[in-house]
Amino acid sequence: MSRIAYVNGAYVRHADAAVHIEDRGYQFADAVYEVWSVFGGQLADLAGHLNRLERSLRELHIAMPMPRASLVVVLNEVIRRNRIGEGLVYLQVSRGVAPRDHFFPTEPVKPALVITAKPVDRQTAESKARKGIRVVSAPDKRWGRCDIKTVGLLPNVLAKQAAREAGASDVIFVDAEGFVTEGGSANVYIVTKEGEVKTRSLRANILPGVTRISLLDILRAEGVDVSEGAFTLEEAKRAKEAFLSAASTFVMPIVQIDDSLIGDGVPGELSLRLREAYIQRAQRSAGIDL
Amino acid sequence: MSRIAYVNGAYVRHADAAVHIEDRGYQFADAVYEVWSVFGGQLADLAGHLNRLERSLRELHIAMPMPRASLVVVLNEVIRRNRIGEGLVYLQVSRGVAPRDHFFPTEPVKPALVITAKPVDRQTAESKARKGIRVVSAPDKRWGRCDIKTVGLLPNVLAKQAAREAGASDVIFVDAEGFVTEGGSANVYIVTKEGEVKTRSLRANILPGVTRISLLDILRAEGVDVSEGAFTLEEAKRAKEAFLSAASTFVMPIVQIDDSLIGDGVPGELSLRLREAYIQRAQRSAGIDL
Repeated sequence: MSRIAYVNGAYVRHADAAVHIEDRGYQFADAVYEVWSVFGGQLADLAGHLNRLERSLRELHIAMPMPRASLVVVLNEVIRRNRIGEGLVYLQVSRGVAPRDHFFPTEPVKPALVITAKPVDRQTAESKARKGIRVVSAPDKRWGRCDIKTVGLLPNVLAKQAAREAGASDVIFVDAEGFVTEGGSANVYIVTKEGEVKTRSLRANILPGVTRISLLDILRAEGVDVSEGAFTLEEAKRAKEAFLSAASTFVMPIVQIDDSLIGDGVPGELSLRLREAYIQRAQRSAGIDL
Repeated sequence: MSRIAYVNGAYVRHADAAVHIEDRGYQFADAVYEVWSVFGGQLADLAGHLNRLERSLRELHIAMPMPRASLVVVLNEVIRRNRIGEGLVYLQVSRGVAPRDHFFPTEPVKPALVITAKPVDRQTAESKARKGIRVVSAPDKRWGRCDIKTVGLLPNVLAKQAAREAGASDVIFVDAEGFVTEGGSANVYIVTKEGEVKTRSLRANILPGVTRISLLDILRAEGVDVSEGAFTLEEAKRAKEAFLSAASTFVMPIVQIDDSLIGDGVPGELSLRLREAYIQRAQRSAGIDL
């Protein structure tokens, strides 16, 4: 069976899936994206990602490429055509194709829409989570609108690649004042010695994580103290636990930041429990547009 | 005659020119570009742009898509096939096509290369320069590596569009300390009451303009005082003259910044003289790889 992508109205072989060279996503990073996890063929956190997609598009004055309900039909059709049980769906919307010019096109253009899907090996991901990951810190040199989920990801690419070359799995960004903002493609959390979970406020220049919303819900329902305040890199290194969250990796325990082991250097109890709770919740609610 | 683009080894009809949806330029803005002016069918500042292209690629650890001499052959062939006399050539190199992952591909991939050309109406451009342009100021919220000429241009797009909606032609960015960095797609210069030309140092977070090199050469040869120092937005508003430079617009006089007229509100004498000198020099040296 060949892999299928949805590109601007057609389901095409992934190998042939193409966009015009003057698609503004290609020439200006004038595009946004979303990634969903798929459980049992169903989209997890469906509404959360659609809400954020609509917000990103609104911020850039790009229209939704089709009504929300139609988009859900196409997302599910891409899952079906690729026979995804456990996997990921990627969606990208750009402003569309127009002669190259920084200014928005003066003639109305149709937003470009690309959707792909791929299976993931949950077993391998689970083993990785049980071991936890090492991260390195790096100055946050990204632009001032990281709240918009654009494809302008080169700063993240470079920082994550530098992390890999330093033997780590990811980066955590630190702002000019020394406070942790987020990971290379994830939100960052610490658990203090007192058992409080801290993650950076959405008032900071970070992406509003969809998985972050669910995690804070779960934690508050469990009666865990949660603070959306700033914490320094040093606080993170002295934390009892630390973890990342993202739609594709759920909760990923951090066992080392730069040269500092976190806690005992193994995934923390709360981190692993939260991962389990998130996955159960996502499995239960997948396919339901809450 | 249909317009022709060069895409990854083939000369194709512009309307059919496409790249794969997993070209990293499309998903991560993991790509750099250059724009040349063409005079009488010849590339202006040929070597300057090639030097900067090589530097941008080196910074991103992307290989040159072909040897420099071959690239010049293709650039000239695109000009020839599009019968460009007076125009622009656009070149973009991305890291290539690979399954979506922030990390650089572990298997070697071939960089993607796209080249397009279009004619420009020099008469209209000249009239615009004679009138000068209005610009608005905006906070510089771009990332920390603006020295690399990447396609991650969304901050520029948004700022330029906001400028247009405010009735201006461009934006000038102002950093957190109040100093002017550069324009939306150009370097910025002022001429002080004392006749000194000031433009921001390349040690700041700005693009090293190729046209900037030529302009500073011309000015120094003429015995004009040139300072590559920081100047504030307020200094710019009180300047005798102000102008932008870019490969596509040469020297563009600024006659108004926000609500302040610059000088007498008409293009300055030095600005217009420099524009003329640059165009003559570019015409003379076009096609010569200095």
